[in-house]
Formats: sequence, structure tokens, C-alpha cells
Amino acid sequence: MKSKYFDHAATTPVRSEVMEEMLPFFTDIYGNASSVHLPGQKAAGVVDDARQKIADLIGADRSEEIIFTSGGTEADNLAIKGTAMALKDKGKHIITSSIEHHAVLHTCQFLEKHLGFDVTYLEVDKEGFVDLEMLRKSIREDTILISIMMANNEIGTIEPVEEIAEIAEEHDILFHTDAVQAVGQIPIDVVKQNIDMLSLSAHKFNGPKGVGALYVKKGIKLVPQSSGGAQERKRRAGTENVPGIVGMGKAAELAKKEMMEKADKLSSMRDDLISRIFSDIDDVLLNGPEGKDRLPGNINITFKFIEGESILLNLNMMDIAASTGSACASGSLDPSHVILALGRSHELAHGSIRFSLGYGNDQEDIEYLMEVLPGIINRLREMSPLYAKKK
Amino acid sequence: MKSKYFDHAATTPVRSEVMEEMLPFFTDIYGNASSVHLPGQKAAGVVDDARQKIADLIGADRSEEIIFTSGGTEADNLAIKGTAMALKDKGKHIITSSIEHHAVLHTCQFLEKHLGFDVTYLEVDKEGFVDLEMLRKSIREDTILISIMMANNEIGTIEPVEEIAEIAEEHDILFHTDAVQAVGQIPIDVVKQNIDMLSLSAHKFNGPKGVGALYVKKGIKLVPQSSGGAQERKRRAGTENVPGIVGMGKAAELAKKEMMEKADKLSSMRDDLISRIFSDIDDVLLNGPEGKDRLPGNINITFKFIEGESILLNLNMMDIAASTGSACASGSLDPSHVILALGRSHELAHGSIRFSLGYGNDQEDIEYLMEVLPGIINRLREMSPLYAKKK
Repeated sequence: MKSKYFDHAATTPVRSEVMEEMLPFFTDIYGNASSVHLPGQKAAGVVDDARQKIADLIGADRSEEIIFTSGGTEADNLAIKGTAMALKDKGKHIITSSIEHHAVLHTCQFLEKHLGFDVTYLEVDKEGFVDLEMLRKSIREDTILISIMMANNEIGTIEPVEEIAEIAEEHDILFHTDAVQAVGQIPIDVVKQNIDMLSLSAHKFNGPKGVGALYVKKGIKLVPQSSGGAQERKRRAGTENVPGIVGMGKAAELAKKEMMEKADKLSSMRDDLISRIFSDIDDVLLNGPEGKDRLPGNINITFKFIEGESILLNLNMMDIAASTGSACASGSLDPSHVILALGRSHELAHGSIRFSLGYGNDQEDIEYLMEVLPGIINRLREMSPLYAKKK
Repeated sequence: MKSKYFDHAATTPVRSEVMEEMLPFFTDIYGNASSVHLPGQKAAGVVDDARQKIADLIGADRSEEIIFTSGGTEADNLAIKGTAMALKDKGKHIITSSIEHHAVLHTCQFLEKHLGFDVTYLEVDKEGFVDLEMLRKSIREDTILISIMMANNEIGTIEPVEEIAEIAEEHDILFHTDAVQAVGQIPIDVVKQNIDMLSLSAHKFNGPKGVGALYVKKGIKLVPQSSGGAQERKRRAGTENVPGIVGMGKAAELAKKEMMEKADKLSSMRDDLISRIFSDIDDVLLNGPEGKDRLPGNINITFKFIEGESILLNLNMMDIAASTGSACASGSLDPSHVILALGRSHELAHGSIRFSLGYGNDQEDIEYLMEVLPGIINRLREMSPLYAKKK
């Protein structure tokens, strides 16, 4: 029996079309894209083709607005630290939300600790939405950057980035969005949405790990965070990861072509799975919003009276992969900062599980999950002192 | 006719054994190494196997002393910025050499510009060696770090790192070495050589681009430069590049096994090529030392009276790939800072070409190069006003 993978928000398989496109660039066309000879220029050519495909996926006007990085985390670090260092004489205040990925939160904390910045972490409502009025009120004279994610990695909430961008522009403040979970899942148009900087990561949309990008609107100056060679127009030093970049380009091309169909399919599987969990299992809560403001593939459920970790281990024994939240925070015993930010208690936060659907998931996977899940929840609850008390 | 690649110092092809080892981790075993489920734990396992192989290649005692990065540039940045930020209250002086790779030089300049550091750039002798007496004299009360490369990327000079490390230790100063060009070419033993931090890059020894590592001796604290998830024991945030890391591990295993044989073969090809260039072409100079203090695969020659760029283009038309120096600095019209540091004039620096040998080069390549090169040099000199004056 094939294992069932419901953790596409953590990472996704590289699609065979992507792999095929990458392969020649490891062993045959292996030149350094910064070299002037033919092998180097062949590499530089395909890097630029990939750059255009990323630009096309997110609606960027110019391919040179795309800076390749080693992933989403590096893109977030570059956007936020790069802006902070470039504008520190203008102001040292940044606004973000309390439910950002750690790549944003810890970067903001780095600036507080090491560069004397002051950061406002906006609270969110019970479905995870940033409040636009609160955002307006938190803006100060010295605010230089607003960084709000496009869609949350744990609960799938799609933030009102267009409205946020408008507020940022009114106040002449730069707007960055961590779109690592959104790219390839929902339509993005950085021009129409008026986004100044946007982070993305290839391995979240069936491209390879180890490569990502930051969109930076023409005219915005960042202080580079990687010092060295003149790559990426002197904005990110380091030999170009040619095969990775080629793979990311192909994945972007496929994502653009197939996005709407995939989103429809995943949304419908998502809603079906949520309603079956609610009908087959008592005492469950949905974390995050319903419907169109939620990422197509995201399901996050609190199973009351039991621990998420125990559910995961039991699912794992049945060859089902899911998650309690961000893989980047795994190993920590703290409950998810995102679920807590929704106003849930520690106990409820501890009982939450994310199922994230993606390329390759089918109805059979859902059937298998729903064969197994109710039994696991029942067994765990039978052993739970909290559940005994309830009864 | 196959093209002849003499630019292994810029980048190398991924070996088929490495590719084979990486392949399953793109499409089949694709879990996030930070996830707790089985697909994640499989990924975490192979990441740790690779970590051990890197440790073995450089003689590290503990695999956890290896931090995976996106490449050599990131490793250099992490070592130098991470140390600077960790020790800035102890002192703000760093010593490096004037012939370092830009990943080190520009990182030092970043610290001068943004964090108020003071950096001494040691001059080198006419073969590129750092003078140990000058190093001793440059040490100050507030010196916190010495960063000297293990081997130069342009002229192949192997620096006396063991002696440098001894001086650093006497003064209780941390010692970092950029070993990007040395790893897999010459034996390294971080314990015996008393190295505190060492940077390496997979694509320089037939591993993939986009992955590197920093060795950090147990007990040394760096301020992480990538903020976010808890990966790499909280020293480098970002989803692990599992296939890249697996490939780097395999490349390290092969390098360890085959290094001595490869070094013997390349040294002998190198010396043969140098002596044939000297016998077949007039008015040439060798840049860098002869013999055992030079990287096995490195040849760097100044062809007087002509421009390196013109030589490269002519070689390129004959399907020969070589370089004028660092690929990372290409596009710049400035002469190499390394060749200038040897005391050569601008004119001589402009006429220098690096041929770097590596896996896959054979006698046939050398024969073809020597069939073609003297004619190119002659033709270019016939067009050179400088050469006409000489005659």
C-alpha cells in the first residue's frame, strides 16, 4: 500500500517534468553561470529563462525583479534585514503579524536584538485575519516596513494583502509579503496587488528544495545579506544553483498552467474532508476560516481532549503523514503560536493537526484517512483523563 | 569533438555516482527533514549520514560540528559575520589577507561599513604567501578573528594554515579558513591543523551547486545569520536541501577515497602543462608558486602583451573553457586583485589566464590545448601594439 502524504505545506515531491528539466544541468551543462565561456553562458541563459517564468507566475513586469535565493527563509531574511539596514536612518519600526512563519518572526526579533529595531506584532482575529484598522493605528512616523504573509502555513488564512498594500502605500511604507504557502496555490499579481517584495520557495510547489526567490520591485534598494561575488546583480552573492533554478522555473511554469484546476480540485477535497471529519468525529474544531479565504489544500483541526503528537504518531504507524504545524518548529514542545493567536487555549492548541493536500493526493487518500482517523481519535480519547472527565 | 573544460576551480560536473545517490530524494523520499513522520525521518537520517561523511573528509571529531549552508559564500558569511556579532563586545578587529575570495573580502568590508569593524588586509609575497611575521605584528588587543584561505582560487597558493592557526591560538583568537578550493584536492585535518572554522562548497568537488557547509569546532558560538526555523541545531534556518546534502555527502566520500591518486595525477598534468607552455610560448610568467605548495589542478599564466579576455574568447571559439580569474568577479573590467597583490603591473594582471584541471581531464585535453594555444597567443600578439613595440 502506498503511504498517504498529507503534509504538502511542509514540502512537496519534485514532479517528474521538473526533474527531467533539471537533470542535464547537473552532469552535462554544468558551467558556472558567471563564467564567460560557452558552458557558463549556457547556464546563464537557462537561469534567465527560469527568472522569466517566476516573474510570469507572480505577475512581475521585469524578470530582473526576481532575486534567486536558497529558499523562502533566505528570501524573508533578505527582504526584512535588507530593508532594515537600507532604511535604518529613516526609521526603526517594523509592523508584522503574530502568526507569521518563524522566518519572519525570528528575523524581526534579530533586528530588535542586534540592530535596535522596534517591532509591532499585530494580533489577529479568531480566524487568523489581520485587522486593517489595527494596522492603521500601529503605523508610526518611523515605520519603514510592513511584512504580512499572503497565506498562513498552519491554518491557511489568506490575508487581505491588497488592502494592506494600499495602506502601506498611503503612508509611503514598504510592503513585504511571505507568499511561500500561497505561490502556486492562489493567483498572485504583484503589480495589481501593489506588492513591493514577495518571498517564495520552490519546494512548496513541486520544485526542488534549496532554491527560492525574492521579488523586489524595481527601484527598491536592499542591503545585500550575502557578501561576495557579483551574482544576481550584486544583490545575492554565491554561485547560482543552476539545476535548482531551472527546476524552480519549470515548477513555476506548471503551477501557472495548472493552478486554477488544481485549486478547484483541492478546495473540493478540502471541504469534503472537513465535513467528513465533523460528521464522523465529535468534539472537533476547525482552525482558520472556511471557504474562499482559506488555502485550497489546508485543513487544520483541533481534536479536543487529546494531544496532536499522539495523533501524529498513530497516523504515522498507519503510513499517514500529517503535521501538528510548521515543520520548522518541530522538536519544540510549545504549542503552535498560530493556534494560540486565534484565542485557543494551550490545551486546544496542543490537540491540533494540519492535513495539507497537494499534487498527487486523490480521493483514495481521503477514503483511507477517514477509515483510520476516527478509530485513532476514539482510542486516544479512551485513554485521556480529560475526556473521561467530560463524560 | 568534446569540449575541453579547464575551469574546475569555477565549478565541476556532478559525478554520476553522486547523481545516482541524490535522485531518489527529489521525487520519492521527499519528506521535510524537520518533520516527525516517517518520510521526514528518512530525510533526517540521510542528512545525518552526509554530515558524517563531510566530517570524515576534513577530520572533524563530531558530525554536529558541520553546519550545512547553501554554498561556500554563505559559509564564509556565517563564519565571519557570525563571529563578529558574537564577539563584538570583546573586540572589533579582524585580520585577513588581500588575496581572499570576494566572499571573505566583501564580508569584511560589510562589517567595516555596517558594524564599525576594523579589518587588516595582509599583503602577500610574490608567490601569494601570507607572511607569518606580518601576521604576528598585525595582531591587536581587540583582534577577534583571523580568516586566511587554505588555498587561493586564482593562483593555487596553499597557505601555511597550521602555522597561522598556531599563532591565532597563542593569542586566543579564532581562526577561520576558506577551504572552498582545497577540499577534495589536498588532505585536511581540522583537529591536527587546529582550525576553528572551515568553509567548503560541494560544487567545487563534483557535488551539486547550491549546497556547502561550515565546520565550527564544538564550543564556538556564532550568531546565526539566517533567522527562522530550528534547523541545523538553530544555527542555520531553512528547510534542509536534502538531495543537495546527500549529493555533497557522496562527493565527500568519493573525494576522500580518491584524493591522493587524483592529486598525483593532476599535479603531474599541471607540471607538464606549465613546462609545455613555457617551452612553446615566449614571454610567459607563472603566477603563484611551483610544486607542492600549489593546488594540484591550478595553472595561472600571464601571457605578456595581450589581454586575458581576448585569449579566453579565442579559446572559447575552439571549445576550450578557461578563465581569467574568479567567475564570481566576471563582468568586471578590473584586473584580478590577486595577481595585482603579487606585485604584477596592471598590464601583466590583465594578461593572466587560469587553467584549472579536475575530474574528467585527460592527456588528450592537454594535447588539444597545446595544439591550439600557441597559435592563439601568436595571432593576438601580432595584433598587439605593445608587442610590436617590444620587437
